[in-house]
Amino acid sequence: MKLCRYGESGQERDGLIDSQGRIRDLAALGPVDMTSSTLARLAAIDPTSLPLVTGSPRYGAAVGNVGKFVAIGLNYSDHAAEMALPLPTEPVVFLKATSCLSGPNDDIVQPRLSTKLDWEVELGVVIGTRAKDVPVETALSHVAGYVLVNDVSERAFQNQSPQWDKGKGCDTFGPVGPWLVTADEVPDSQNLDMWLDVNGNRMQTGNTRTMIFDVKTLVSYVSRYMTLLPGDIITTGTPPGVGLGIKPTPIFLQPGDVVTLGVQCLGQQRQRVVAGA
Amino acid sequence: MKLCRYGESGQERDGLIDSQGRIRDLAALGPVDMTSSTLARLAAIDPTSLPLVTGSPRYGAAVGNVGKFVAIGLNYSDHAAEMALPLPTEPVVFLKATSCLSGPNDDIVQPRLSTKLDWEVELGVVIGTRAKDVPVETALSHVAGYVLVNDVSERAFQNQSPQWDKGKGCDTFGPVGPWLVTADEVPDSQNLDMWLDVNGNRMQTGNTRTMIFDVKTLVSYVSRYMTLLPGDIITTGTPPGVGLGIKPTPIFLQPGDVVTLGVQCLGQQRQRVVAGA
Repeated sequence: MKLCRYGESGQERDGLIDSQGRIRDLAALGPVDMTSSTLARLAAIDPTSLPLVTGSPRYGAAVGNVGKFVAIGLNYSDHAAEMALPLPTEPVVFLKATSCLSGPNDDIVQPRLSTKLDWEVELGVVIGTRAKDVPVETALSHVAGYVLVNDVSERAFQNQSPQWDKGKGCDTFGPVGPWLVTADEVPDSQNLDMWLDVNGNRMQTGNTRTMIFDVKTLVSYVSRYMTLLPGDIITTGTPPGVGLGIKPTPIFLQPGDVVTLGVQCLGQQRQRVVAGA
Repeated sequence: MKLCRYGESGQERDGLIDSQGRIRDLAALGPVDMTSSTLARLAAIDPTSLPLVTGSPRYGAAVGNVGKFVAIGLNYSDHAAEMALPLPTEPVVFLKATSCLSGPNDDIVQPRLSTKLDWEVELGVVIGTRAKDVPVETALSHVAGYVLVNDVSERAFQNQSPQWDKGKGCDTFGPVGPWLVTADEVPDSQNLDMWLDVNGNRMQTGNTRTMIFDVKTLVSYVSRYMTLLPGDIITTGTPPGVGLGIKPTPIFLQPGDVVTLGVQCLGQQRQRVVAGA
Protein backbone atom coordinates (compact mmCIF):
# COMPACT_ATOMS: atom_id res chain seq x y z
CA MET A 1 0.00 0.00 0.00
CA LYS A 2 1.18 3.50 -0.83
CA LEU A 3 -0.02 6.38 1.32
CA CYS A 4 0.47 10.06 0.66
CA ARG A 5 -0.48 13.49 1.91
CA TYR A 6 -1.57 15.93 -0.72
CA GLY A 7 -2.72 19.52 -1.02
CA GLU A 8 -1.38 22.92 -0.08
CA SER A 9 1.31 23.19 2.56
CA GLY A 10 -0.21 23.06 6.02
CA GLN A 11 -3.56 21.90 4.59
CA GLU A 12 -2.56 18.40 3.49
CA ARG A 13 -5.14 15.63 3.30
CA ASP A 14 -4.46 11.94 3.57
CA GLY A 15 -4.50 9.92 0.37
CA LEU A 16 -3.91 6.44 -0.94
CA ILE A 17 -2.32 5.61 -4.29
CA ASP A 18 -4.44 3.23 -6.33
CA SER A 19 -3.24 0.57 -8.75
CA GLN A 20 -3.17 3.11 -11.56
CA GLY A 21 -1.08 5.58 -9.58
CA ARG A 22 -3.93 7.95 -8.91
CA ILE A 23 -4.66 9.54 -5.52
CA ARG A 24 -7.75 8.36 -3.65
CA ASP A 25 -8.94 10.59 -0.83
CA LEU A 26 -8.96 9.17 2.71
CA ALA A 27 -10.61 12.09 4.49
CA ALA A 28 -13.82 10.18 5.14
CA LEU A 29 -11.89 7.59 7.15
CA GLY A 30 -10.71 9.99 9.83
CA PRO A 31 -7.11 10.79 10.75
CA VAL A 32 -4.49 8.47 9.32
CA ASP A 33 -1.57 7.51 11.48
CA MET A 34 1.18 4.94 11.11
CA THR A 35 -0.07 2.45 13.69
CA SER A 36 -0.54 -1.12 12.58
CA SER A 37 -4.25 -0.97 13.39
CA THR A 38 -4.75 2.02 11.10
CA LEU A 39 -2.71 0.43 8.32
CA ALA A 40 -4.69 -2.82 8.61
CA ARG A 41 -7.93 -0.87 8.43
CA LEU A 42 -6.78 0.93 5.28
CA ALA A 43 -5.49 -2.24 3.65
CA ALA A 44 -8.94 -3.77 3.95
CA ILE A 45 -10.52 -1.03 1.82
CA ASP A 46 -11.15 -1.39 -1.90
CA PRO A 47 -9.34 1.70 -3.27
CA THR A 48 -11.91 2.06 -6.05
CA SER A 49 -14.52 2.74 -3.38
CA LEU A 50 -12.64 5.89 -2.33
CA PRO A 51 -13.12 9.29 -4.01
CA LEU A 52 -10.72 9.84 -6.90
CA VAL A 53 -8.63 13.00 -6.62
CA THR A 54 -8.50 14.86 -9.91
CA GLY A 55 -5.90 17.27 -11.18
CA SER A 56 -2.28 17.26 -10.05
CA PRO A 57 -2.21 18.35 -6.45
CA ARG A 58 1.00 19.02 -4.60
CA TYR A 59 2.40 16.16 -2.55
CA GLY A 60 3.25 17.08 1.04
CA ALA A 61 5.71 15.23 3.23
CA ALA A 62 4.44 11.64 3.09
CA VAL A 63 4.16 11.35 6.88
CA GLY A 64 2.20 13.69 9.14
CA ASN A 65 2.64 14.36 12.85
CA VAL A 66 6.29 13.39 12.86
CA GLY A 67 7.49 13.62 16.45
CA LYS A 68 11.15 12.82 15.77
CA PHE A 69 13.18 12.99 12.59
CA VAL A 70 16.22 10.91 13.49
CA ALA A 71 19.17 10.72 11.12
CA ILE A 72 22.21 8.48 10.84
CA GLY A 73 25.55 9.85 9.68
CA LEU A 74 28.19 8.10 7.59
CA ASN A 75 26.30 4.82 7.25
CA TYR A 76 27.49 3.59 3.82
CA SER A 77 30.82 1.85 3.57
CA ASP A 78 31.46 3.19 0.06
CA HIS A 79 30.62 6.73 1.18
CA ALA A 80 32.99 6.44 4.15
CA ALA A 81 35.70 5.26 1.77
CA GLU A 82 35.00 8.20 -0.55
CA MET A 83 35.40 10.61 2.37
CA ALA A 84 38.55 8.75 3.53
CA LEU A 85 36.96 8.34 6.95
CA PRO A 86 37.16 5.23 9.13
CA LEU A 87 33.98 3.15 9.41
CA PRO A 88 32.03 4.10 12.51
CA THR A 89 31.94 1.38 15.13
CA GLU A 90 28.49 2.48 16.29
CA PRO A 91 25.77 4.38 14.44
CA VAL A 92 26.21 8.16 14.53
CA VAL A 93 22.81 9.52 15.58
CA PHE A 94 21.63 13.09 15.15
CA LEU A 95 18.28 14.84 14.78
CA LYS A 96 16.75 16.90 12.01
CA ALA A 97 14.30 19.58 13.20
CA THR A 98 10.76 18.51 12.29
CA SER A 99 10.14 22.01 10.94
CA CYS A 100 12.42 21.09 8.01
CA LEU A 101 9.93 18.55 6.63
CA SER A 102 8.68 19.40 3.17
CA GLY A 103 7.01 17.90 0.15
CA PRO A 104 9.00 15.75 -2.28
CA ASN A 105 8.79 18.33 -5.06
CA ASP A 106 8.81 21.52 -3.01
CA ASP A 107 11.58 24.03 -3.59
CA ILE A 108 14.72 23.78 -1.50
CA VAL A 109 15.12 27.26 -0.05
CA GLN A 110 18.77 28.17 0.32
CA PRO A 111 19.15 29.99 3.66
CA ARG A 112 20.37 33.57 3.53
CA LEU A 113 23.89 32.83 4.81
CA SER A 114 24.33 29.50 3.03
CA THR A 115 27.44 28.85 0.93
CA LYS A 116 27.68 25.04 0.90
CA LEU A 117 24.26 23.57 0.14
CA ASP A 118 24.42 19.83 -0.51
CA TRP A 119 22.26 16.78 -1.20
CA GLU A 120 21.92 13.26 0.24
CA VAL A 121 19.55 10.62 -1.16
CA GLU A 122 18.44 8.33 1.66
CA LEU A 123 16.11 5.54 2.65
CA GLY A 124 13.75 6.71 5.40
CA VAL A 125 12.21 4.26 7.85
CA VAL A 126 8.83 5.13 9.34
CA ILE A 127 7.92 3.74 12.75
CA GLY A 128 4.51 2.10 13.12
CA THR A 129 4.50 0.83 16.68
CA ARG A 130 6.22 2.10 19.82
CA ALA A 131 9.76 0.75 20.10
CA LYS A 132 11.68 1.05 23.35
CA ASP A 133 14.94 -0.87 23.67
CA VAL A 134 13.83 -3.53 21.20
CA PRO A 135 16.13 -6.36 20.07
CA VAL A 136 17.49 -6.47 16.53
CA GLU A 137 15.53 -9.65 15.87
CA THR A 138 12.12 -8.04 16.27
CA ALA A 139 12.99 -4.48 15.28
CA LEU A 140 11.48 -4.67 11.78
CA SER A 141 8.08 -5.46 13.28
CA HIS A 142 8.02 -1.83 14.47
CA VAL A 143 8.44 -0.46 10.94
CA ALA A 144 5.28 0.78 9.19
CA GLY A 145 7.01 1.44 5.91
CA TYR A 146 9.62 3.31 3.96
CA VAL A 147 9.98 6.71 2.36
CA LEU A 148 12.40 8.47 0.07
CA VAL A 149 14.26 11.28 1.87
CA ASN A 150 16.60 14.00 0.66
CA ASP A 151 18.71 14.77 3.73
CA VAL A 152 19.51 18.28 2.50
CA SER A 153 22.55 19.63 4.30
CA GLU A 154 24.42 22.91 4.57
CA ARG A 155 28.04 21.91 5.10
CA ALA A 156 29.27 25.27 6.39
CA PHE A 157 26.51 25.35 9.02
CA GLN A 158 26.96 21.63 9.73
CA ASN A 159 30.66 21.91 10.43
CA GLN A 160 30.79 25.34 12.07
CA SER A 161 30.46 23.70 15.49
CA PRO A 162 30.92 20.06 16.47
CA GLN A 163 27.13 19.62 16.28
CA TRP A 164 25.61 18.97 12.85
CA ASP A 165 21.95 19.69 13.64
CA LYS A 166 22.17 23.37 12.67
CA GLY A 167 23.15 22.47 9.12
CA LYS A 168 20.65 19.63 8.81
CA GLY A 169 17.43 21.16 10.08
CA CYS A 170 16.91 24.35 8.05
CA ASP A 171 13.43 24.87 6.62
CA THR A 172 12.87 22.76 3.46
CA PHE A 173 15.87 20.51 4.26
CA GLY A 174 13.64 17.46 4.69
CA PRO A 175 11.75 16.46 1.52
CA VAL A 176 9.93 13.19 2.34
CA GLY A 177 7.86 11.18 -0.13
CA PRO A 178 6.06 11.16 -2.52
CA TRP A 179 4.63 8.14 -0.74
CA LEU A 180 4.99 6.02 2.30
CA VAL A 181 5.26 2.46 0.99
CA THR A 182 4.16 -0.04 3.61
CA ALA A 183 6.76 -2.60 4.65
CA ASP A 184 4.89 -5.51 3.05
CA GLU A 185 5.53 -3.95 -0.38
CA VAL A 186 9.28 -3.61 0.20
CA PRO A 187 10.49 -7.22 0.15
CA ASP A 188 14.09 -6.40 1.07
CA SER A 189 14.93 -2.96 2.38
CA GLN A 190 18.63 -3.91 2.19
CA ASN A 191 18.58 -4.26 -1.57
CA LEU A 192 17.19 -1.04 -2.98
CA ASP A 193 18.91 0.94 -5.71
CA MET A 194 19.17 4.66 -5.16
CA TRP A 195 20.32 7.61 -7.25
CA LEU A 196 20.44 11.37 -7.32
CA ASP A 197 20.95 13.80 -10.21
CA VAL A 198 21.76 17.49 -10.18
CA ASN A 199 20.63 19.26 -13.36
CA GLY A 200 20.37 15.87 -15.03
CA ASN A 201 23.89 14.77 -14.14
CA ARG A 202 24.14 11.63 -12.08
CA MET A 203 25.87 12.45 -8.77
CA GLN A 204 24.90 9.58 -6.46
CA THR A 205 24.45 5.92 -7.24
CA GLY A 206 24.12 3.35 -4.54
CA ASN A 207 22.24 0.48 -3.03
CA THR A 208 21.07 0.01 0.52
CA ARG A 209 23.09 -3.21 0.66
CA THR A 210 26.24 -1.19 1.43
CA MET A 211 24.80 0.23 4.65
CA ILE A 212 27.19 -0.33 7.55
CA PHE A 213 24.32 -0.67 10.03
CA ASP A 214 21.19 -2.13 8.46
CA VAL A 215 17.63 -1.02 9.12
CA LYS A 216 16.87 -3.53 11.85
CA THR A 217 20.10 -2.69 13.65
CA LEU A 218 19.36 1.04 13.44
CA VAL A 219 15.81 0.72 14.77
CA SER A 220 17.05 -1.42 17.65
CA TYR A 221 20.00 0.87 18.35
CA VAL A 222 18.08 4.15 18.35
CA SER A 223 15.36 2.57 20.51
CA ARG A 224 17.93 1.96 23.24
CA TYR A 225 18.34 5.69 23.63
CA MET A 226 14.93 7.15 22.86
CA THR A 227 11.52 5.56 22.55
CA LEU A 228 10.46 5.51 18.92
CA LEU A 229 6.82 6.40 18.37
CA PRO A 230 4.41 5.94 15.43
CA GLY A 231 5.23 8.48 12.75
CA ASP A 232 8.86 8.94 13.79
CA ILE A 233 11.25 8.77 10.84
CA ILE A 234 14.80 7.44 10.84
CA THR A 235 16.71 8.47 7.73
CA THR A 236 19.51 6.00 7.31
CA GLY A 237 22.47 7.71 5.68
CA THR A 238 23.62 8.34 2.14
CA PRO A 239 25.73 6.47 -0.45
CA PRO A 240 28.71 8.07 -2.26
CA GLY A 241 28.46 11.18 -4.39
CA VAL A 242 27.59 14.13 -2.18
CA GLY A 243 28.81 17.54 -3.29
CA LEU A 244 31.24 17.88 -0.40
CA GLY A 245 33.01 14.70 -1.51
CA ILE A 246 33.72 15.73 -5.10
CA LYS A 247 37.45 15.88 -5.92
CA PRO A 248 39.36 18.03 -6.35
CA THR A 249 36.75 20.74 -5.76
CA PRO A 250 33.46 20.21 -3.95
CA ILE A 251 30.30 21.26 -5.79
CA PHE A 252 27.41 22.89 -3.97
CA LEU A 253 23.87 23.72 -5.01
CA GLN A 254 23.01 27.15 -6.35
CA PRO A 255 19.65 28.81 -6.95
CA GLY A 256 18.21 27.49 -10.19
CA ASP A 257 19.69 24.02 -9.80
CA VAL A 258 17.31 21.09 -10.03
CA VAL A 259 17.78 17.98 -7.89
CA THR A 260 16.06 14.73 -8.82
CA LEU A 261 16.39 11.56 -6.81
CA GLY A 262 14.87 8.17 -6.22
CA VAL A 263 15.00 4.96 -4.26
CA GLN A 264 13.74 1.74 -5.87
CA CYS A 265 10.09 1.04 -4.92
CA LEU A 266 9.75 4.43 -3.22
CA GLY A 267 9.20 6.84 -6.11
CA GLN A 268 11.06 9.97 -7.09
CA GLN A 269 11.50 13.57 -5.97
CA ARG A 270 12.32 16.75 -7.85
CA GLN A 271 13.39 19.94 -6.12
CA ARG A 272 14.33 23.31 -7.52
CA VAL A 273 16.78 25.37 -5.47
CA VAL A 274 15.66 28.93 -4.76
CA ALA A 275 17.34 31.72 -2.83
CA GLY A 276 15.97 32.48 0.62
CA ALA A 277 14.72 35.96 1.42
CA MET B 1 0.86 34.57 34.59
CA LYS B 2 1.94 31.04 35.40
CA LEU B 3 0.61 28.20 33.26
CA CYS B 4 0.98 24.51 33.92
CA ARG B 5 -0.10 21.11 32.68
CA TYR B 6 -1.25 18.71 35.34
CA GLY B 7 -2.54 15.17 35.65
CA GLU B 8 -1.33 11.73 34.71
CA SER B 9 1.32 11.35 32.00
CA GLY B 10 -0.26 11.53 28.57
CA GLN B 11 -3.53 12.82 30.06
CA GLU B 12 -2.40 16.28 31.13
CA ARG B 13 -4.87 19.15 31.36
CA ASP B 14 -4.06 22.81 31.09
CA GLY B 15 -3.97 24.82 34.28
CA LEU B 16 -3.25 28.28 35.58
CA ILE B 17 -1.57 29.03 38.91
CA ASP B 18 -3.57 31.50 40.98
CA SER B 19 -2.24 34.12 43.38
CA GLN B 20 -2.22 31.58 46.20
CA GLY B 21 -0.24 29.04 44.17
CA ARG B 22 -3.18 26.76 43.54
CA ILE B 23 -4.02 25.21 40.18
CA ARG B 24 -7.10 26.49 38.34
CA ASP B 25 -8.42 24.30 35.54
CA LEU B 26 -8.44 25.73 32.02
CA ALA B 27 -10.22 22.88 30.24
CA ALA B 28 -13.38 24.90 29.63
CA LEU B 29 -11.39 27.41 27.59
CA GLY B 30 -10.32 25.00 24.89
CA PRO B 31 -6.78 24.06 23.93
CA VAL B 32 -4.06 26.29 25.33
CA ASP B 33 -1.13 27.14 23.12
CA MET B 34 1.72 29.60 23.46
CA THR B 35 0.53 32.14 20.90
CA SER B 36 0.19 35.74 22.03
CA SER B 37 -3.53 35.71 21.26
CA THR B 38 -4.10 32.74 23.57
CA LEU B 39 -1.97 34.25 26.30
CA ALA B 40 -3.83 37.58 26.05
CA ARG B 41 -7.14 35.75 26.27
CA LEU B 42 -6.01 33.89 29.40
CA ALA B 43 -4.58 37.02 31.02
CA ALA B 44 -7.99 38.67 30.77
CA ILE B 45 -9.63 35.99 32.92
CA ASP B 46 -10.17 36.37 36.65
CA PRO B 47 -8.47 33.22 37.99
CA THR B 48 -10.99 32.95 40.81
CA SER B 49 -13.68 32.35 38.16
CA LEU B 50 -11.93 29.14 37.11
CA PRO B 51 -12.50 25.74 38.79
CA LEU B 52 -10.07 25.12 41.64
CA VAL B 53 -8.10 21.89 41.33
CA THR B 54 -8.00 20.03 44.61
CA GLY B 55 -5.48 17.53 45.85
CA SER B 56 -1.86 17.41 44.68
CA PRO B 57 -1.89 16.32 41.07
CA ARG B 58 1.28 15.54 39.18
CA TYR B 59 2.75 18.35 37.12
CA GLY B 60 3.51 17.40 33.51
CA ALA B 61 6.00 19.17 31.27
CA ALA B 62 4.85 22.78 31.43
CA VAL B 63 4.52 23.10 27.65
CA GLY B 64 2.45 20.82 25.42
CA ASN B 65 2.81 20.13 21.72
CA VAL B 66 6.49 20.98 21.65
CA GLY B 67 7.63 20.72 18.03
CA LYS B 68 11.32 21.38 18.67
CA PHE B 69 13.39 21.14 21.81
CA VAL B 70 16.50 23.11 20.87
CA ALA B 71 19.49 23.19 23.20
CA ILE B 72 22.61 25.31 23.42
CA GLY B 73 25.91 23.83 24.52
CA LEU B 74 28.63 25.47 26.59
CA ASN B 75 26.87 28.83 26.95
CA TYR B 76 28.17 29.99 30.36
CA SER B 77 31.57 31.63 30.58
CA ASP B 78 32.21 30.27 34.08
CA HIS B 79 31.21 26.74 32.96
CA ALA B 80 33.56 26.96 29.96
CA ALA B 81 36.34 28.06 32.31
CA GLU B 82 35.58 25.13 34.63
CA MET B 83 35.85 22.72 31.70
CA ALA B 84 39.06 24.46 30.49
CA LEU B 85 37.42 24.94 27.11
CA PRO B 86 37.70 28.04 24.93
CA LEU B 87 34.59 30.22 24.70
CA PRO B 88 32.55 29.35 21.61
CA THR B 89 32.51 32.10 18.99
CA GLU B 90 29.01 31.09 17.87
CA PRO B 91 26.26 29.29 19.77
CA VAL B 92 26.57 25.49 19.69
CA VAL B 93 23.10 24.26 18.68
CA PHE B 94 21.80 20.74 19.12
CA LEU B 95 18.40 19.10 19.55
CA LYS B 96 16.83 17.10 22.34
CA ALA B 97 14.27 14.51 21.20
CA THR B 98 10.78 15.70 22.14
CA SER B 99 10.08 12.23 23.51
CA CYS B 100 12.42 13.07 26.40
CA LEU B 101 10.05 15.70 27.81
CA SER B 102 8.82 14.89 31.29
CA GLY B 103 7.23 16.44 34.33
CA PRO B 104 9.35 18.51 36.74
CA ASN B 105 9.07 15.95 39.53
CA ASP B 106 8.96 12.75 37.48
CA ASP B 107 11.65 10.15 38.02
CA ILE B 108 14.76 10.28 35.89
CA VAL B 109 15.01 6.80 34.44
CA GLN B 110 18.62 5.75 34.00
CA PRO B 111 18.89 3.92 30.65
CA ARG B 112 19.97 0.30 30.78
CA LEU B 113 23.50 0.92 29.45
CA SER B 114 24.09 4.22 31.21
CA THR B 115 27.25 4.76 33.26
CA LYS B 116 27.62 8.56 33.30
CA LEU B 117 24.27 10.15 34.11
CA ASP B 118 24.59 13.88 34.74
CA TRP B 119 22.54 17.03 35.48
CA GLU B 120 22.31 20.55 34.03
CA VAL B 121 20.06 23.26 35.48
CA GLU B 122 19.00 25.60 32.67
CA LEU B 123 16.74 28.48 31.70
CA GLY B 124 14.31 27.39 28.99
CA VAL B 125 12.82 29.91 26.57
CA VAL B 126 9.38 29.15 25.13
CA ILE B 127 8.46 30.58 21.73
CA GLY B 128 5.12 32.35 21.41
CA THR B 129 5.10 33.61 17.85
CA ARG B 130 6.73 32.29 14.69
CA ALA B 131 10.31 33.50 14.35
CA LYS B 132 12.18 33.14 11.07
CA ASP B 133 15.49 34.94 10.70
CA VAL B 134 14.51 37.62 13.19
CA PRO B 135 16.94 40.37 14.28
CA VAL B 136 18.35 40.43 17.80
CA GLU B 137 16.52 43.70 18.48
CA THR B 138 13.04 42.21 18.14
CA ALA B 139 13.82 38.60 19.12
CA LEU B 140 12.35 38.85 22.63
CA SER B 141 8.95 39.76 21.19
CA HIS B 142 8.75 36.14 19.99
CA VAL B 143 9.18 34.75 23.53
CA ALA B 144 6.00 33.63 25.32
CA GLY B 145 7.74 32.90 28.58
CA TYR B 146 10.31 30.94 30.49
CA VAL B 147 10.57 27.52 32.09
CA LEU B 148 12.97 25.68 34.34
CA VAL B 149 14.70 22.79 32.51
CA ASN B 150 16.96 20.01 33.70
CA ASP B 151 19.00 19.15 30.58
CA VAL B 152 19.69 15.62 31.82
CA SER B 153 22.64 14.14 29.96
CA GLU B 154 24.39 10.80 29.68
CA ARG B 155 28.04 11.68 29.08
CA ALA B 156 29.14 8.27 27.77
CA PHE B 157 26.33 8.29 25.19
CA GLN B 158 26.91 11.99 24.46
CA ASN B 159 30.59 11.58 23.71
CA GLN B 160 30.58 8.16 22.06
CA SER B 161 30.24 9.79 18.66
CA PRO B 162 30.80 13.41 17.69
CA GLN B 163 27.04 14.01 17.92
CA TRP B 164 25.61 14.72 21.36
CA ASP B 165 21.90 14.12 20.64
CA LYS B 166 22.00 10.43 21.59
CA GLY B 167 23.08 11.29 25.14
CA LYS B 168 20.69 14.22 25.48
CA GLY B 169 17.39 12.81 24.27
CA CYS B 170 16.79 9.65 26.29
CA ASP B 171 13.31 9.26 27.78
CA THR B 172 12.86 11.38 30.95
CA PHE B 173 15.93 13.52 30.11
CA GLY B 174 13.81 16.65 29.71
CA PRO B 175 12.01 17.71 32.90
CA VAL B 176 10.30 21.05 32.10
CA GLY B 177 8.37 23.16 34.59
CA PRO B 178 6.59 23.21 37.01
CA TRP B 179 5.21 26.28 35.25
CA LEU B 180 5.62 28.39 32.21
CA VAL B 181 6.03 31.93 33.53
CA THR B 182 5.00 34.48 30.93
CA ALA B 183 7.66 36.94 29.84
CA ASP B 184 5.93 39.92 31.47
CA GLU B 185 6.56 38.34 34.88
CA VAL B 186 10.28 37.85 34.25
CA PRO B 187 11.62 41.41 34.28
CA ASP B 188 15.18 40.48 33.31
CA SER B 189 15.88 36.99 31.99
CA GLN B 190 19.61 37.82 32.14
CA ASN B 191 19.64 38.18 35.89
CA LEU B 192 18.15 35.02 37.31
CA ASP B 193 19.84 32.97 40.02
CA MET B 194 19.95 29.24 39.46
CA TRP B 195 21.02 26.26 41.55
CA LEU B 196 21.01 22.48 41.62
CA ASP B 197 21.48 20.04 44.50
CA VAL B 198 22.15 16.31 44.47
CA ASN B 199 21.01 14.58 47.66
CA GLY B 200 20.90 17.99 49.33
CA ASN B 201 24.45 18.95 48.40
CA ARG B 202 24.79 22.08 46.32
CA MET B 203 26.41 21.20 42.97
CA GLN B 204 25.53 24.10 40.69
CA THR B 205 25.23 27.78 41.49
CA GLY B 206 24.94 30.37 38.78
CA ASN B 207 23.14 33.29 37.29
CA THR B 208 21.93 33.82 33.75
CA ARG B 209 24.07 36.96 33.59
CA THR B 210 27.13 34.83 32.77
CA MET B 211 25.60 33.47 29.57
CA ILE B 212 27.96 33.93 26.64
CA PHE B 213 25.07 34.40 24.20
CA ASP B 214 22.02 35.99 25.82
CA VAL B 215 18.41 34.99 25.21
CA LYS B 216 17.68 37.51 22.49
CA THR B 217 20.87 36.57 20.65
CA LEU B 218 20.00 32.88 20.86
CA VAL B 219 16.44 33.32 19.59
CA SER B 220 17.71 35.41 16.69
CA TYR B 221 20.56 33.01 15.94
CA VAL B 222 18.53 29.80 15.97
CA SER B 223 15.84 31.48 13.85
CA ARG B 224 18.39 31.99 11.07
CA TYR B 225 18.66 28.24 10.69
CA MET B 226 15.21 26.92 11.51
CA THR B 227 11.85 28.63 11.87
CA LEU B 228 10.85 28.72 15.52
CA LEU B 229 7.19 27.96 16.13
CA PRO B 230 4.85 28.50 19.09
CA GLY B 231 5.61 25.93 21.77
CA ASP B 232 9.21 25.35 20.67
CA ILE B 233 11.64 25.42 23.59
CA ILE B 234 15.24 26.64 23.55
CA THR B 235 17.16 25.53 26.61
CA THR B 236 20.05 27.88 27.00
CA GLY B 237 22.97 26.09 28.58
CA THR B 238 24.16 25.40 32.10
CA PRO B 239 26.38 27.18 34.66
CA PRO B 240 29.32 25.47 36.41
CA GLY B 241 28.99 22.38 38.56
CA VAL B 242 27.98 19.46 36.37
CA GLY B 243 29.09 16.00 37.46
CA LEU B 244 31.47 15.60 34.54
CA GLY B 245 33.36 18.71 35.62
CA ILE B 246 34.08 17.65 39.20
CA LYS B 247 37.81 17.37 39.99
CA PRO B 248 39.67 15.14 40.38
CA THR B 249 36.95 12.54 39.82
CA PRO B 250 33.66 13.19 38.06
CA ILE B 251 30.50 12.26 39.94
CA PHE B 252 27.51 10.73 38.16
CA LEU B 253 23.96 10.01 39.25
CA GLN B 254 22.99 6.61 40.62
CA PRO B 255 19.58 5.06 41.27
CA GLY B 256 18.25 6.45 44.53
CA ASP B 257 19.85 9.86 44.11
CA VAL B 258 17.58 12.88 44.37
CA VAL B 259 18.13 15.97 42.23
CA THR B 260 16.53 19.29 43.19
CA LEU B 261 16.95 22.46 41.17
CA GLY B 262 15.54 25.89 40.61
CA VAL B 263 15.76 29.09 38.64
CA GLN B 264 14.65 32.35 40.26
CA CYS B 265 11.00 33.19 39.36
CA LEU B 266 10.51 29.81 37.67
CA GLY B 267 9.93 27.42 40.56
CA GLN B 268 11.70 24.23 41.53
CA GLN B 269 11.97 20.61 40.40
CA ARG B 270 12.71 17.41 42.27
CA GLN B 271 13.64 14.17 40.52
CA ARG B 272 14.50 10.79 41.91
CA VAL B 273 16.83 8.62 39.83
CA VAL B 274 15.57 5.10 39.14
CA ALA B 275 17.11 2.26 37.18
CA GLY B 276 15.65 1.55 33.75
CA ALA B 277 14.27 -1.87 32.97
